[in-house]
This record gives sequence, C-alpha cells and structure tokens, in this order.
Amino acid sequence: MSPPGLSHSPLTLATNRLTSIASHIRTDAEKLKVIVLRDMGPDVMPLLYDRPELNVVMWPHDKACKRQWILENVPGASGILATIVDKIKAGPSLRVISTMSVGYEHIDVQTAAQRDIKVGYTPDVLTEAVADISVMLALMASRNGRQGIEFVGRGEWPHWAPYTLCGPQLSTNPITQTRTAGFIGFGRISQATLSRLIPFGFTNCIFTSSPTSKSNPQVEEELRKKFNLRSLRRGTLDDVARGSDVVFVLAPGGPQTYYIVNEDFLRKMKKTAVLVNTARGTLVDSDALAKALREGWIWGAGVDVVEGEPDVGIDHPLVKEPRCVIVPHIGSATNETRLTMASLAAKNLIAGLFNEPMPVPLQLNK
Amino acid sequence: MSPPGLSHSPLTLATNRLTSIASHIRTDAEKLKVIVLRDMGPDVMPLLYDRPELNVVMWPHDKACKRQWILENVPGASGILATIVDKIKAGPSLRVISTMSVGYEHIDVQTAAQRDIKVGYTPDVLTEAVADISVMLALMASRNGRQGIEFVGRGEWPHWAPYTLCGPQLSTNPITQTRTAGFIGFGRISQATLSRLIPFGFTNCIFTSSPTSKSNPQVEEELRKKFNLRSLRRGTLDDVARGSDVVFVLAPGGPQTYYIVNEDFLRKMKKTAVLVNTARGTLVDSDALAKALREGWIWGAGVDVVEGEPDVGIDHPLVKEPRCVIVPHIGSATNETRLTMASLAAKNLIAGLFNEPMPVPLQLNK
Repeated sequence: MSPPGLSHSPLTLATNRLTSIASHIRTDAEKLKVIVLRDMGPDVMPLLYDRPELNVVMWPHDKACKRQWILENVPGASGILATIVDKIKAGPSLRVISTMSVGYEHIDVQTAAQRDIKVGYTPDVLTEAVADISVMLALMASRNGRQGIEFVGRGEWPHWAPYTLCGPQLSTNPITQTRTAGFIGFGRISQATLSRLIPFGFTNCIFTSSPTSKSNPQVEEELRKKFNLRSLRRGTLDDVARGSDVVFVLAPGGPQTYYIVNEDFLRKMKKTAVLVNTARGTLVDSDALAKALREGWIWGAGVDVVEGEPDVGIDHPLVKEPRCVIVPHIGSATNETRLTMASLAAKNLIAGLFNEPMPVPLQLNK
Repeated sequence: MSPPGLSHSPLTLATNRLTSIASHIRTDAEKLKVIVLRDMGPDVMPLLYDRPELNVVMWPHDKACKRQWILENVPGASGILATIVDKIKAGPSLRVISTMSVGYEHIDVQTAAQRDIKVGYTPDVLTEAVADISVMLALMASRNGRQGIEFVGRGEWPHWAPYTLCGPQLSTNPITQTRTAGFIGFGRISQATLSRLIPFGFTNCIFTSSPTSKSNPQVEEELRKKFNLRSLRRGTLDDVARGSDVVFVLAPGGPQTYYIVNEDFLRKMKKTAVLVNTARGTLVDSDALAKALREGWIWGAGVDVVEGEPDVGIDHPLVKEPRCVIVPHIGSATNETRLTMASLAAKNLIAGLFNEPMPVPLQLNK
C-alpha cells in the first residue's frame, strides 16, 4: 500500500528511469546487484532505480518476502534492503545489509561483523510517532476506550449515569493534584512521551535505566527543570511499580528485559494505574497482565505489541480482557515516519555500497 | 455504579446518619423536602442525608428516573437534584433546581426565572477531562485506532507492511514541520486542549468564536506567546476548515450551531485532516461526515457525541464508517470529575435552599 497524496505519477517515474537507462547503458553483470525484500513505495524506490550502477531485484508482492525467493536471488547480491519481518543471514557476496526498522533482532549481526558487512538501520526517526501512540494508549486505557468503542459498535450506546464508564483521570484535577509518570527505559521515546504529559498536569517522574548505564544526577536535574516537574528520578523497578499512575514500557527487547513486567511487578502497581507497552511484546507477561486486569490489581492497559504477534487470536488472554486496549503494532505507522524510515533505509544501502559514510550505521561489536 | 476506591464504608455512613437523626428529631413535615433523581454515590449523598433539616427522597434505581415518579414526588418539594437526562419543569413549591451537568437544555429556565427559582449547574470542573478525551480522539482518528482495535478483536492481527494502517502523524516531523489546530468555539476546553497539543509540535492555531463576542487581539497575542505558537488567530469557519490539520468542535449546542459542520465545511477541509467532536452531536451533520469519510474528503473523525444519542444503532452511518472513532459521551466520565460534579451539584442545592451564595449559580435572564 502506498501512502496517499505523496506519490509521483507513474509516467514521471517511467520517464526518469528511461533517461537513467539511456544515459548509462550497462549490462546487469557490470552492476551491483541489490535485492529489495519489500516494495518501499513510489517515493522511495526511485532512490535505487535511478542509480544506473545498481541492478535492483525487488520482491514484487504486497506481503512478506518468501524465504525461497531470498535464497534464489541472494547469490551475487552486494546489498539487501530488508524489513523487520525478514530473517537475514549474511551470504558470501554481501557487503551491505540495510533494514527499515529500529530493531535488528532479525539480522545475524555476529556473522555480519565477522565478514565486515556493513549494517544500517533506522532508529530515532520514529521517536515522535511512538510517543504519540504511547499517550493515545495511556488515555484509551484510563478512559475505558475499548469498551466505549465496542459498546457503540454493537449498537449498545449506554444510557447516561453518574459513574458509567468512568475511569481514573489522566490529567490532574481538584481531587488528584499529583500525577506520576513511570518509565521502564528512559531513552528518546520515553522523554518525548514525558514532554507530552506535562500539560496534562503531570508532576513527577520515576524511571529505570539499563543496569549498565550510570545515573547522572545533573542531567536528571536539568530534565526536571526543563519539564517543570516536582521530581524526576531514577529508581528501582519496585519504585516505578509502586509510585506511578501510568507505567510506560519503553526498553529494548531481548533476554535481559524478558517479562520485566510480570506478576510481581503488576501486584505492586496502584489499583488506579494503567500500563502502556509500546516497546516489544516480550517485556510483558501476557498471562500475568490479563490476570491483573481481571482481578483489578490495576485499572487498565494499552498495548501496541504482544508476545507472539501476529499470531494473536480471539482466545488470547489479553484480547479477552475488555480493559486491555490492543492495537496491532502501529507505533511507527504514520505516513511521514514510515516514508522517512524507508527512505533512510535506501540511503543507508546506497551509502554502504558506494563506500560513503552511512547516514545511520549500526555499530557492530567484532 | 459508585467509583472504586473512593467510598466510605456503609457502617460509617449509617453511624453518621443515626447520630444526625438522634440529635435533631424532627418530623418530615418540619423539614425541607428535596427530591434526588439519581443516586450520586456514597461520597456525595451524605452531604444531603447528614443535614437534619432535609427530607431527602431519592429515586432508588440505577437507571434514569421515571417521569411518573417525579410527578408523584415533586409536590411539596423545595429542591430538585437532577442530571442531564431529566427534563425539569418548575413546580409551585420549588425554590431550587440543581443539575449535575454543564448543559441546562433539560431545564425550563424561563419559568424558573419568572418564579424566582434558583438554578445551579456544574460547568468548568469538566474542562480537563474533556480536553483529555479530545486529544485521545484526535490521536485515535489519525492513527486508525478503531480499525486497529477491531482487527485485533476479530483475531486478525495484520501482517507487517511498510504502509499498513498508516495515517497522518499528529506530531510534527521532518516531512511535516507545521501543524495547525482549528477550534470551532474557543472557550476553556479548547484552550486546555490546545495546551496539550503544544509538545506534539503544533505551530499554529485558528479559531472561531460566537458572532456576538468581540475579537481581542491583545488577548490573542498573549495566548500565542504563552503557547509559543507561530500564529494564533480568530478566523472564519472557512479559515478553520481550510487551514487546520485537526478541527475540534467545542462550541455550545442549540439552534445557532446546528450542523455548523456540514457538507460545505467538510469539503473544504484538508484530505489529511481529522475532525473531533466532543461538544454536542447537533453541531455535526452525521450524514455529511459519513460521506466525507467514505469519499476521502478528510482522513478520519473522532466523536464523543452523535445527534440522536443514545439511539445510535449498528446501521447508523457513522457506526458503519471504520475511520470514525466513536465513544459514547464519556467526555467528562472520570471518577474525579464526576465526583466533583455530583458534589458541586449537592452543594449548589444546599446553598440555594439555605439562602447561602450558590457555589455556581446559573445566571437567569428575567
């Protein structure tokens, strides 16, 4: 699917391509072969097609690239342009792997490092889009948004009553004059999310960071001042669980954060608090979260990611909990951000192939 | 339904009430009769029950009060505590009408004014709750939130693709470096909503105001500075339609604003814009909005109110549009705000009955 309103006309593209071909007649054998595992759309593909030095071989379907197609096409390829759903193992001719994603769990980076294959990825550009959806899910989880939408969808608009569909208020108010945001992981997305919460009246912030990073009280004090908070401090997981009105899970995936939100964590949270996960499904134990919602340990949850996605059926314990708002991994899914990611991935690939500095290289440990 | 975590124990309430009764033995005939058309919950009802001077007669069911019950109980009543769903016409003994609502369309204020009946209501206290949900709906409408939730609810988590479920990004980004918020009506809720949009990178604001209010460039310049916007200006409806990335409908209901958002307005909006209505259903022509969504004149809509609610079935044109996010009039539905509204309504009633200044009287034109 190409994004609306941003595409060149097919005629322009065809003309550009013809001009390129005409002025640089080369045989495919003289060109660098790159395989593209997904059509990146009419605003991005010309970045590759318009380079006469490249022989671009693209998976032509609007669904995930088949393993067999990759195996057939990768021989002789110097570069691969991949997405988060493609498992990439470095072949012998390969010089550059570029992925349109912030994650790189799907790439065999160890082999890439050993063989001096350059890897590019697309972090940072999705910060604002993910911060947007983190706030959206915090609001939806507090305000019984899923139940509200489902009532109306079933033609069962509830009659007004003083406390029907009431939830905890995200913003401060005469009854609740403080609000604490908790973050598991406190990188760019967490800070962009925190900045959005300030006009809602948030007064305090607690976060955890990777155990290997050091606390920096001076930076924390600067952030506290910048956001005009009463307090901003690094704490333990327990501090975040016990002290927060909203907990945002925004740490990387992988074994070190596996089920960091488990039954123990959820039991320590406030009964009126909500949990938001816009990071990776593996950080949250889905069964424990479903139990927490069912038994009222916490008020609600909003998740963009679920362990095992996309295999999440109607019997999944979280799908069955009406207070769990679930959207299907659309954290970075805005036209602007996905276009920026795709075009950055194409630029990383080209720079890697032509031995120019990659806009955003992944630093590999050899 | 009473809000969780905020109620007194029944024993405490019973003891308090017994103490009150014991120390002031009066017959019902000596007391002021007040009729309460809806149980306001265990945190609010004691405000009335604990006054020995009052004979409180309460509709005991958790559904809207029946007309017949009101007619049977209103004779001799000095005060009524009502909600938005109760139509109130002043009876001969009545001295005070207090409503737990910001709207007062359900009260015959003309007769009330003629008979010197005091009317109290509960504006302002819901400002923050409605601003919260306005931002929630803007995000949900931009990010295909209803479709995302429905896909997951049907067990159809979509496979990842570069542009699947992408929508326009609410926050600014390298591709879209300006964002304009449009407001139809620019009172407290609009300004609280605007303040929340600032960290999303909003750069400009256009609003319309009631035709009877005068433009005040100095106040506008102060607001522009306060929010650090490039521009903030009062404009025509056309300006708001053409210039905004998000249009928030936040004007009062009534004949003067009936269908202020109609086919003409919607046709002038940007194709990537979203419409949010958290005011009254009558401000938006539902058929025109459904057509606008179906035919792609605008990107999406988020509405908390629909004309004719609660009679909104599965065949309603807006329910049938997947890009219309609909929640069932829960704008002020937070525990904190509804408790504040209910308790303010009780205080208005008491003050009116005992000839004290009402916390928030409605100014009646005689």
